[in-house]
Amino acid sequence: MERIVMKFGGTSVANPERIARAAQLVVREVNSGKQVAVIVSAMGKTTDELLSLAKEVNSAAGRRELDMLLATGEQVTASLLAMAISGEGVEAHSYTGWQAGVLTESVHGNARIEQVQADRVSAALTSGTVAVITGFQGADMHGELTTLGRGGSDTSAVAIAIALGASICDIYTDVEGVFTTDPRLIKQAQKLEEISYDEMLEIANLGAGVLHPRAVEFAKNHQMPLRVRPAHIEGEGTIIKEEIDLENNLVVRGIAFERDIVRITVMYNVPYNGSLANIFTALAEHHVNVDIIVQTIREDVQPSVSFSIKKEDFAEVINVLESNKEALGYSRADFEVGLAKVSIVGSGMVSNPGVAASLFETLRQVDIPIKMVSTSEIKVSVVIPEPEMEKAVAALHEQFGLDAVKGK
Amino acid sequence: MERIVMKFGGTSVANPERIARAAQLVVREVNSGKQVAVIVSAMGKTTDELLSLAKEVNSAAGRRELDMLLATGEQVTASLLAMAISGEGVEAHSYTGWQAGVLTESVHGNARIEQVQADRVSAALTSGTVAVITGFQGADMHGELTTLGRGGSDTSAVAIAIALGASICDIYTDVEGVFTTDPRLIKQAQKLEEISYDEMLEIANLGAGVLHPRAVEFAKNHQMPLRVRPAHIEGEGTIIKEEIDLENNLVVRGIAFERDIVRITVMYNVPYNGSLANIFTALAEHHVNVDIIVQTIREDVQPSVSFSIKKEDFAEVINVLESNKEALGYSRADFEVGLAKVSIVGSGMVSNPGVAASLFETLRQVDIPIKMVSTSEIKVSVVIPEPEMEKAVAALHEQFGLDAVKGK
Repeated sequence: MERIVMKFGGTSVANPERIARAAQLVVREVNSGKQVAVIVSAMGKTTDELLSLAKEVNSAAGRRELDMLLATGEQVTASLLAMAISGEGVEAHSYTGWQAGVLTESVHGNARIEQVQADRVSAALTSGTVAVITGFQGADMHGELTTLGRGGSDTSAVAIAIALGASICDIYTDVEGVFTTDPRLIKQAQKLEEISYDEMLEIANLGAGVLHPRAVEFAKNHQMPLRVRPAHIEGEGTIIKEEIDLENNLVVRGIAFERDIVRITVMYNVPYNGSLANIFTALAEHHVNVDIIVQTIREDVQPSVSFSIKKEDFAEVINVLESNKEALGYSRADFEVGLAKVSIVGSGMVSNPGVAASLFETLRQVDIPIKMVSTSEIKVSVVIPEPEMEKAVAALHEQFGLDAVKGK
Repeated sequence: MERIVMKFGGTSVANPERIARAAQLVVREVNSGKQVAVIVSAMGKTTDELLSLAKEVNSAAGRRELDMLLATGEQVTASLLAMAISGEGVEAHSYTGWQAGVLTESVHGNARIEQVQADRVSAALTSGTVAVITGFQGADMHGELTTLGRGGSDTSAVAIAIALGASICDIYTDVEGVFTTDPRLIKQAQKLEEISYDEMLEIANLGAGVLHPRAVEFAKNHQMPLRVRPAHIEGEGTIIKEEIDLENNLVVRGIAFERDIVRITVMYNVPYNGSLANIFTALAEHHVNVDIIVQTIREDVQPSVSFSIKKEDFAEVINVLESNKEALGYSRADFEVGLAKVSIVGSGMVSNPGVAASLFETLRQVDIPIKMVSTSEIKVSVVIPEPEMEKAVAALHEQFGLDAVKGK
């Protein structure tokens, strides 16, 4: 019998009404003859509420106890959803991460799943019971509760789908699927029927937020088909898998963007002598996420390196550069704020060397200056002035034929 | 090194301030050189809030899922208290029931503890870590979460204290200790320094509410000393143990009372023929708790049986009697409402046959009619009109020398 995994995020189980809706979606799948395992996040703002309670008793609480505290959030959702499913006449049992055999490494707050021993859940499914499993959590080999960190529920869903031999892992969320770009910004944005793991990975890493990159990577490594589907309305969503039919032979399949980007440029006194490694090591130690890096080493100008960061890390970067000025061996640094990053993503780029050129030409035509460029096999990113971002995305969306994608 | 168990009930951990206070009490014990395991209930009204959520998604939710849901309540408290203790500079880890090795029978909602495998908690204590354990819950041999039913946290505390070889199990609560009678009713009520298990058992069963009878019985069977102590103020509380020094050679050590008692009397058509068993079997099947039972079988009057119940069960009893009238074989029933039960308790009664007589005489002197009487080795209960209850308790409290108990 076909098995599927359905995952419901926090907003899709935020209150009893939405839990009832999720239960109906589950029951519909059961009635169509499938065995169903469900993965749930904590209800809406529960995690934030628990964290604020923790802060009241100890503003520097340890990760072990935070895991013990936060793990209750999904357990509440799981039991409530199991009750709601039972209320619809379908047998359902909830399971915590450890009960479902989710074995993680011995790390609190950001553990990785090592193994899923799914016998217990598998037996429940075989006997016709829906298994509702807490996402985001597991236990280590010593029986310590662990949580998986951001995007953990998506990762739980994929790992459990793989262990159960599910045919697909449906991620129910509050959007209709994966779009060619953000429909809140660009009206012409179109929902994609399909997208490849690699494309989704680039889009997820670029902050599209629909699905966590860890989960996509996990699915890709095990070739588990994913589907991003809406929980609140009817809709087929977007399937994420390895081989896709190229809709309209599109080279570019999506445009991602990110606001609040800052460019930092560091000028060296002396020719390159290893300072570069020093700078990025120092930044990494302070958990600063550096994105695009461009180095200029020419005989005729002072050597420099530019890199982009998020605005929220700006103060920390300045602090690191200031307090390590001598060790890092640079003369001066400047920065530019008010920037944005726009990226075009598509597997078809690999065999289309003209894509980057087409992007540059499109932006030139609408008079948008390009501050930085970065390319990968299936992605080109440019840093541009933030006020021009919407115009840039709209122009590129049209240029690469995304306005006309069918399937929405 | 001396080990102790400290148990905090729901009101003693109802908010972050009270959790901080509990943490200070724990740290004080640690600093005095003891190894400490702490058992906690869910915060204040948490259990009620979770039950109301459950009702919203399924008004007839099954016990398995209710256990999964309710078990989160103590887990939240345990992790918060562990954080608060760590904040005071003392290492503390929280443990769920299953992590602490609390193995119960495979029953949901009202499981009994079968065994406590305390190795993990014991190792934590030995290493100088405070173990904060969720009360009220455990897991069965299949890894299913179970809850222990009413009074479960007290029972958890006693079972864990026994398994850890603790020297005492301190039950922190919102009262100062065990009193000769309820100080809210009788100003002269005195706090007792000590009381025996059997006396405490009678008082607990009589609804004094400080400590659950199951926990007292468990402690008695394993000779684990208990102490009921106040969490909100300083105070030594009351020690409950086997052998006590009879303070002032008191025969009666406490007076318990209960309002809202109803007397039912059932008259048979025919001589006793087994109807009695039928009636009480039918009532037990409907979970009606029958207290005092008095049967009258005389040649000269119609045979009858009277029994007392709580007012809350009245409708159910009428329903059971009505719908089984023929099967139960009785002609008519009458009832009397507006009654109360007053009980005197004391181990010394065993060797003092005049105690019951003294009780009757005291009530006669203040003109209080006695409706029913029941006696055990260490208790005499009478059912009287509820408006006379306070007068009765005050008279008995004085008569049996309790006004003058020292030690408060």
